[in-house]
Amino acid sequence: MLLVIVGQQKLVRSLSIEGATFMKKLINSPENVVREELEGMELAHGDRLKVSYEPFYIARKDAPVKGKVALVSGGGSGHEPMHGGYVGKGMLDAACPGHIFTSPTPDQMFEAGKAVHGGAGVLQIVKNYTGDVMNFDLAADTLREEKIQVESVLTDDDVAVENSLYTAGRRGVGLTVLMEKLLGAAAEERRSLAALKKLGDEIRASGRSMGMALTPCTVPHAGKPSFELGESEMEVGIGIHGEPGRRRVPLVPADEIVAMLMETVLKDLPFKSGESVILFVNGMGGTPLIELYIVYRKAAQIAAQHGLKIVRNLVGNYITSLEMAGCSITLLRANDELVQLWDAPVNTPALRWSI
Amino acid sequence: MLLVIVGQQKLVRSLSIEGATFMKKLINSPENVVREELEGMELAHGDRLKVSYEPFYIARKDAPVKGKVALVSGGGSGHEPMHGGYVGKGMLDAACPGHIFTSPTPDQMFEAGKAVHGGAGVLQIVKNYTGDVMNFDLAADTLREEKIQVESVLTDDDVAVENSLYTAGRRGVGLTVLMEKLLGAAAEERRSLAALKKLGDEIRASGRSMGMALTPCTVPHAGKPSFELGESEMEVGIGIHGEPGRRRVPLVPADEIVAMLMETVLKDLPFKSGESVILFVNGMGGTPLIELYIVYRKAAQIAAQHGLKIVRNLVGNYITSLEMAGCSITLLRANDELVQLWDAPVNTPALRWSI
Repeated sequence: MLLVIVGQQKLVRSLSIEGATFMKKLINSPENVVREELEGMELAHGDRLKVSYEPFYIARKDAPVKGKVALVSGGGSGHEPMHGGYVGKGMLDAACPGHIFTSPTPDQMFEAGKAVHGGAGVLQIVKNYTGDVMNFDLAADTLREEKIQVESVLTDDDVAVENSLYTAGRRGVGLTVLMEKLLGAAAEERRSLAALKKLGDEIRASGRSMGMALTPCTVPHAGKPSFELGESEMEVGIGIHGEPGRRRVPLVPADEIVAMLMETVLKDLPFKSGESVILFVNGMGGTPLIELYIVYRKAAQIAAQHGLKIVRNLVGNYITSLEMAGCSITLLRANDELVQLWDAPVNTPALRWSI
Repeated sequence: MLLVIVGQQKLVRSLSIEGATFMKKLINSPENVVREELEGMELAHGDRLKVSYEPFYIARKDAPVKGKVALVSGGGSGHEPMHGGYVGKGMLDAACPGHIFTSPTPDQMFEAGKAVHGGAGVLQIVKNYTGDVMNFDLAADTLREEKIQVESVLTDDDVAVENSLYTAGRRGVGLTVLMEKLLGAAAEERRSLAALKKLGDEIRASGRSMGMALTPCTVPHAGKPSFELGESEMEVGIGIHGEPGRRRVPLVPADEIVAMLMETVLKDLPFKSGESVILFVNGMGGTPLIELYIVYRKAAQIAAQHGLKIVRNLVGNYITSLEMAGCSITLLRANDELVQLWDAPVNTPALRWSI
């Protein structure tokens, strides 16, 4: 085989050679990725979680929790630990995984909601993607036919683009993780469905995010990278499915990247001097933790320069795009109530603490 | 520029074009990676950690803890969250980060040990690499000159190779994470230095690991990948610095990879039917969590086929090689005492739980 590449070498983890596609992934077959992951999660966390395979969903082992509003989320797979890793006491009651980067179906959401409903209603946490929104709406209608009260909270925190390949309006990204933690804690307090809906809408209005990518990722079914980036390029404002961002620009040092993201996020709400915030620096899956702390460092410095007080933080790979290298930054205004909900005990595979 | 590549395309995150090296990393400069990471950790976790910059080490905020044996570890950076992410109540008192993939210096280990010594001695947890062993030995001597009792526990759990590029004997890998958790819990119980040394040696004798890589990683100073792998190749038995493994073989499905690793690990001790174990599936930094659960699934199935009872587990990126894609599997025989120590509360940036 002779490859001739003019200009720039591609950064990929897959290549088709003589008709055969090699993907550098620890999988058995693209068809079975989600099922086998669920089997692995059940084997690893069966003490706390139960898994339904027809249709796919992950639920709290002790669900339904009587008298508690049941929190149900879901979305395409490939963003792990979101959402399955956030099922457990203090966070979600159920999560519905779609195929990689593909919305789950209404029957998954319906069956999950029905299974975990504890008599106090179901709150759906939905990232703003057209498929997710439509299917959660259909599931909500079907749940209501079963006399189950349903409300939905949307996340659309990505300031990068107003509309995108997969959305009308802004995309739901990093804020979703914070939303699930905060509403999960509030639900444990036995707040009503209406109160949780109101709180969720307030959180939605108070958080903003933006991300960037150094490399693409490869969806197993596609067998090739979702996009291409030159060796000295990055994509600013990227979505979590590799959908295009705001602009493709030359790679610059981390501090400049963080300044770009922070300035855009800060101006959007806008965040004002004197406010308290939760600062969430997220890795896209293929970014070493050492780099995320370098990002956190600059983000915290910029936040301080703008007079913001960081009252809580989260640093790590929490909402990812498979093996994509890159990061996102989320800021959320946090009053005392949100701080107390953040600190409340949580026991899930991916987030776990006590007071 | 015209690149002609015969045979196989290289899988890299860096490329030298017309003399300039582009590395796809969220850093500012190779020289400042470790310092800036430490600044980020201090900003993010300053409530629990304190950072010394001359020389570099991370310590528990409440250190020295009077009457408790102080646990000190360290090693090259690039394996985050190990070791700095494991500093805190229930785990390490201090961690000394070297430059990327480079042993820390004796003065770091000495200053850290002296700073966190609470009057009951210092236990060093040392991965078996020539530089680490030599420098921790020198630091121990200097601490003893200050009338501080010092013992050391070694990890050399990697069954892949007997000697390697950086070691006499086997390399210390995944078991180190479990060792730090277990000894950290035992130290909180105010066990004596001699008792902790004995327990550490027992854990060392009871655990085995093996890893593999799908891609190399790029050390910032080097600016190019630590090794090269063809598009359809993987390296089995890889070390955590990208040092060569046992063999380079064609990429196969995840289940076959896991079987290779598990068979070698199981036979080595050997683990026997009826035994209880802790199963730790670790990502090398660039592996999506969805793949690690697929690995866990098969590892758990094989363990069950061999009559092993998995009493606890850990799945995630805990001892990494920058952005390398790949995984390692660690098995540790676990009696009731170790299970109780595993379950004991821990509060560090990377591992955190209460009972």
